[in-house]
Amino acid sequence: MKPFADLSRFINPRNVAVVGASARESSQGRRLYDNLVLHSSVPGEVYAVNPAYQEIGGRPCWPSISALPEAEIDVALIMINATLVLDALRQCAARGIPFAVVMTSGFSEAGEEGQRLEREIAQLCESTGLHVYGPNCPGFVNVRDRLGMTFSPAFKDDLNAGSIGLATQGGGLGRNLLQGLSFGQGVGLWFSAGNEVDLEIPDFIAHMANDPKISVIALLMEGVKHGRRLTAALELARARNKPVVVLKVGRSEAGVRAAQSHTASVAGTAAVNSAVFRQFGAIEVDDLDQLLAASRLLTRITPKSGNGLCIYTFSGGTAALAADIAGAAGLPMAVFAPETKAALCKLLPDFASMDNPVDTTADILRNPEASAACLRAICADPQVGTVLFPIPMDYGSITDGMAQAIATVAAETDTLIVPVWMSRRLGGGFQLLETAGLLPFLSLSDAIAALSKAIPWKLPAHESAAAPQQMAAAAGKGCMLSEAAAKSLLREAGLPIPEGVVAASAAQAAQEAERLGFPVVMKVVSAQIAHKTEAGGVKLGIASASAARDAYAAIHESVARHRPDATIDGILVERMLPPGGREVLVGVHSDAAFGLVLTFGLGGIFVETIRDVAHRMIPLSRHDARALLGEIRYAEVLDGVRGQAPADLTALEDLILRVSDFAWSHRDALQEMELNPVWVGAEGQGAMPLDALIGLRPGADPALGQRQP
Amino acid sequence: MKPFADLSRFINPRNVAVVGASARESSQGRRLYDNLVLHSSVPGEVYAVNPAYQEIGGRPCWPSISALPEAEIDVALIMINATLVLDALRQCAARGIPFAVVMTSGFSEAGEEGQRLEREIAQLCESTGLHVYGPNCPGFVNVRDRLGMTFSPAFKDDLNAGSIGLATQGGGLGRNLLQGLSFGQGVGLWFSAGNEVDLEIPDFIAHMANDPKISVIALLMEGVKHGRRLTAALELARARNKPVVVLKVGRSEAGVRAAQSHTASVAGTAAVNSAVFRQFGAIEVDDLDQLLAASRLLTRITPKSGNGLCIYTFSGGTAALAADIAGAAGLPMAVFAPETKAALCKLLPDFASMDNPVDTTADILRNPEASAACLRAICADPQVGTVLFPIPMDYGSITDGMAQAIATVAAETDTLIVPVWMSRRLGGGFQLLETAGLLPFLSLSDAIAALSKAIPWKLPAHESAAAPQQMAAAAGKGCMLSEAAAKSLLREAGLPIPEGVVAASAAQAAQEAERLGFPVVMKVVSAQIAHKTEAGGVKLGIASASAARDAYAAIHESVARHRPDATIDGILVERMLPPGGREVLVGVHSDAAFGLVLTFGLGGIFVETIRDVAHRMIPLSRHDARALLGEIRYAEVLDGVRGQAPADLTALEDLILRVSDFAWSHRDALQEMELNPVWVGAEGQGAMPLDALIGLRPGADPALGQRQP
Repeated sequence: MKPFADLSRFINPRNVAVVGASARESSQGRRLYDNLVLHSSVPGEVYAVNPAYQEIGGRPCWPSISALPEAEIDVALIMINATLVLDALRQCAARGIPFAVVMTSGFSEAGEEGQRLEREIAQLCESTGLHVYGPNCPGFVNVRDRLGMTFSPAFKDDLNAGSIGLATQGGGLGRNLLQGLSFGQGVGLWFSAGNEVDLEIPDFIAHMANDPKISVIALLMEGVKHGRRLTAALELARARNKPVVVLKVGRSEAGVRAAQSHTASVAGTAAVNSAVFRQFGAIEVDDLDQLLAASRLLTRITPKSGNGLCIYTFSGGTAALAADIAGAAGLPMAVFAPETKAALCKLLPDFASMDNPVDTTADILRNPEASAACLRAICADPQVGTVLFPIPMDYGSITDGMAQAIATVAAETDTLIVPVWMSRRLGGGFQLLETAGLLPFLSLSDAIAALSKAIPWKLPAHESAAAPQQMAAAAGKGCMLSEAAAKSLLREAGLPIPEGVVAASAAQAAQEAERLGFPVVMKVVSAQIAHKTEAGGVKLGIASASAARDAYAAIHESVARHRPDATIDGILVERMLPPGGREVLVGVHSDAAFGLVLTFGLGGIFVETIRDVAHRMIPLSRHDARALLGEIRYAEVLDGVRGQAPADLTALEDLILRVSDFAWSHRDALQEMELNPVWVGAEGQGAMPLDALIGLRPGADPALGQRQP
Repeated sequence: MKPFADLSRFINPRNVAVVGASARESSQGRRLYDNLVLHSSVPGEVYAVNPAYQEIGGRPCWPSISALPEAEIDVALIMINATLVLDALRQCAARGIPFAVVMTSGFSEAGEEGQRLEREIAQLCESTGLHVYGPNCPGFVNVRDRLGMTFSPAFKDDLNAGSIGLATQGGGLGRNLLQGLSFGQGVGLWFSAGNEVDLEIPDFIAHMANDPKISVIALLMEGVKHGRRLTAALELARARNKPVVVLKVGRSEAGVRAAQSHTASVAGTAAVNSAVFRQFGAIEVDDLDQLLAASRLLTRITPKSGNGLCIYTFSGGTAALAADIAGAAGLPMAVFAPETKAALCKLLPDFASMDNPVDTTADILRNPEASAACLRAICADPQVGTVLFPIPMDYGSITDGMAQAIATVAAETDTLIVPVWMSRRLGGGFQLLETAGLLPFLSLSDAIAALSKAIPWKLPAHESAAAPQQMAAAAGKGCMLSEAAAKSLLREAGLPIPEGVVAASAAQAAQEAERLGFPVVMKVVSAQIAHKTEAGGVKLGIASASAARDAYAAIHESVARHRPDATIDGILVERMLPPGGREVLVGVHSDAAFGLVLTFGLGGIFVETIRDVAHRMIPLSRHDARALLGEIRYAEVLDGVRGQAPADLTALEDLILRVSDFAWSHRDALQEMELNPVWVGAEGQGAMPLDALIGLRPGADPALGQRQP
């Protein structure tokens, strides 16, 4: 994996060059140059480069990068025709300029010629160590140090700096976030590297994870280019205790192939992305306003915030509604200390509700001091970590006073106060809360959704499995092993597999069934048949030798009818496991971005309909395996319902880890595998795959280097 | 069921009396009187009643209702001490005043004495025909006719009338909605009847369903008092083609008893409410802003709106994000006609995206005329029913121009244009859209969620089952029938039940098993054991006579150990149905508000964990039964997955209807029943309950009037 770039000289360059600086007013080249010369604080020089000019705005201009005077230039900003870019970059590399920002469009987004140009840029980066940011991007903005390496005319208004670090792909929407963060904690750094030929989202995450002035990382992503670099960067952010909030746009289905097993189609690329974000502790959101809200909340969350939620308002209906929505979201409600209740009793009328949710009643509206005193008493309660303060109506100067009381108390306390301005009349009270940086939400549901995403964020002590290498991409058509062959390989790898024999005749089937003990199951063995049931190739609960003989004939007859193309290699006769076992699925498939991914979930015929599955990147740690068991809805069934004994979770964990190890050690050969159903007995009874499917990449050794079955 | 009240004289009274009118400034009695005299248009007289005054504000005042001059008074407004209210109401009844609004608090919400008073008021209403609105309520506001029968000082600002009819319980939050509906279509009538001793939400719905000036009914409910009146009112609204949007607050768990079967606990009161709203075509929302947004959208929806969605914006990232969210919500995207594309090609630059979603690129920003022309071309496309127009940034005067273009085109077209103002800077463009009544949303997710709730609303041709009678409330402890007794009753009622016999000895069990044919199942018969599996009382897949003998002994032994309290009445031996059947649940329980409710869903051990269930009020029509089958996630499995044949849906429908009929005809005796699992074979194989549980009300005949089993 390519190491993360050290961006310190990029973030705070001493001298910069503007290649394509223009004297023409309102041209992009002029706006870029002006942003640096007039609106930025560059410690050193801003060198203009353009053969068409001797000077721009009274300052000198040079004909080329090579012609620039001796100086340590950290960043070259390039805004010239796409065909000239490569030459300019070569000059940068030759002079030892470490970073170049290519804003010009007309590269891979424009067609084949552009793609070729990009490949040449990538090669130049690799051979010289030059780092390129772009092409086809709006540039980079360092708000906190007043540095606008961008041609955006809006840069001069980007004045509200803060500890939120932002990285976007396809920069347009980043401006929406900057506008939303005009008050309170704003954006410190905004990366938007367009086509990402070299520097990419993981580099920016890694930089921000290490940057002490960034406290929250917000991402707006369109695609995942190098999955393992992304996860490594997310892991770094987690290690540095920096929450990462991500909005993933334009979920590509490119990674979903028409897989032979069902696992890949259930997983899909969007589901895998979400699972990976969860696995690496990133908070995924669905919309831009949620990205903004969760990021802002995370800058305000204190160690106390998670202690418990208090709902505080002056309308009974609002209190009930808020408690309803918070309850549905599973936010824990604080229980007041006796002192808190005593304080409220002194301040509020008798008919107020002094328990959580607090309804002060409208009596308090004309008394902002009492309002502030109540809020202070609640914030002082150690059990109250967060106060949700819905304001249902705009009452003009009355709610202005209420807003002022909130702002005053919020500035004094380490309890998180989250106001919700529910009225569509956004009067003075709303404006006051907004400019005080309190980010008043406009709906209860939105506020509670953001809280429930932001508050649980903490760093669990986590033993992460190392995953240093990236999978080779799958290509062409591989081969599918028969159930018997797959089971044999898995038995070799130490997985528990039901006792069974492949019979070549009805008589042998009957004899082996007698030996194994009734009841048995019988299944067709054929490398061409992935789904045996559909072909009539499976018979369950065979209770006698004569039934075994009948089943042998019936399977042959049915398979010949349904799949005349398939070669029947025999009939597998297996001991049937005791009834009452729970059925789960353990699958592995190869994701285009993240390599091998393990899927665990509800098994049997439910796989595709109920879609109760969870995912983890391979290899898994024991911690991962355990967490996975709890992530499906079916989890309760494993714990035992209706008097049922708990399932053998230890055995299931072992099995999952063995699958992970097996898949990881054969990662170059393995395309996919599916164990479905996996039978899970009660505690102590173990867990066993009843069916197994293994798909190999083209050219892989079907024995995977093990003893041939 | 009590018929709906005719409210025409209440909505538009000629003369009204204000009992408790006060001369004291800023008292509630004065505000109420002033609202009527100064801020309302009452066609006739407003009579003040108060023994303490001769006159109020220069107008005469009478000592009592009885003392009022001869006049046809339609409504008496009562704002006097709770202890005096009953006497005032008696005077109203004696004079033939048809309606009284009691605003006074201190009734059932205040304790036992208040509850007693309310009962007396209810009796007075019943014996005299007087209608009481209240007590403990803010009154009634008829915005469209400028009539404020309320003491709220905010009434004088309730100026924006419209076709939305609003009914709330616990009125405070209603004001939030009125503030939100200050522009565009506003609220025409606002009912808020507090404790609802007589007139209640269903009366208001019924009135608004028949009121030609109301086009959308918005409800904010805290509890359901008379479920069958509510559903009858919802049905009336549907028959009148009026959408009903409902926010249900304070979901009470009072109706959920610790039921012996699992059905009631799965259903819960909130789930039943939601199911009933869905069944009767009401649109349920989760938050106040959604209630407002959906109601407003519904006033703007035209017959064309559902044709297809077009996303139209000037930022590529925004287009992708909006398409993503709309896709996830399942909104159908419009395909442009060739003329539309041709028109866009003429107006937009080459690099714009002229397909849906449309990205005009930022080039169009400085040209509001071109913007309007594009929008016009899109709205003219017959395939485009709704245009979602996200505006990602506030660009000052540029976005002001864009907003003006939207307002202009929206006024010309019957295509629904829904602007989304995504920036948190709510500048002039936002204000322009707001005052134009276009209800700009503030987030893409919210806009799309509201559209996906509002657009599909149409009236399906629906054969509704008549359900005239209300269930008697369950009380005390009833009795539970054994599986064998329950199955016998159901067999009598025409339900298909597996062949079986209750055996009294091991030998008999073996003999009956031989007769039925192997494999068989054996189950303990005991009225005390609801969950046989937990007690070790069930053995499946018994394949021989000796196994049957062993099972007989094992069941006796295990049940004796687990449930020494239970009497064993024998062992039920049943023919086992062929493997591969799908397992569902059909249950019935009694809901406090809606009477008997049928639950259908995924069966077996999944019931409580997967909770894949749907509900219908009993009795069901065939249409209901069919719809029910499609409402669970498991629906796909019934249709057949992985090559499996479709399940016998016709048999399942029949079974559900027979259960509904059985339950309805025994509604006075039946407390609950649960058939779980119900085995459903492939097409033509039928559907049969494998287990059955029937719980009866105290005192009910265990044979339900049928032949004793």
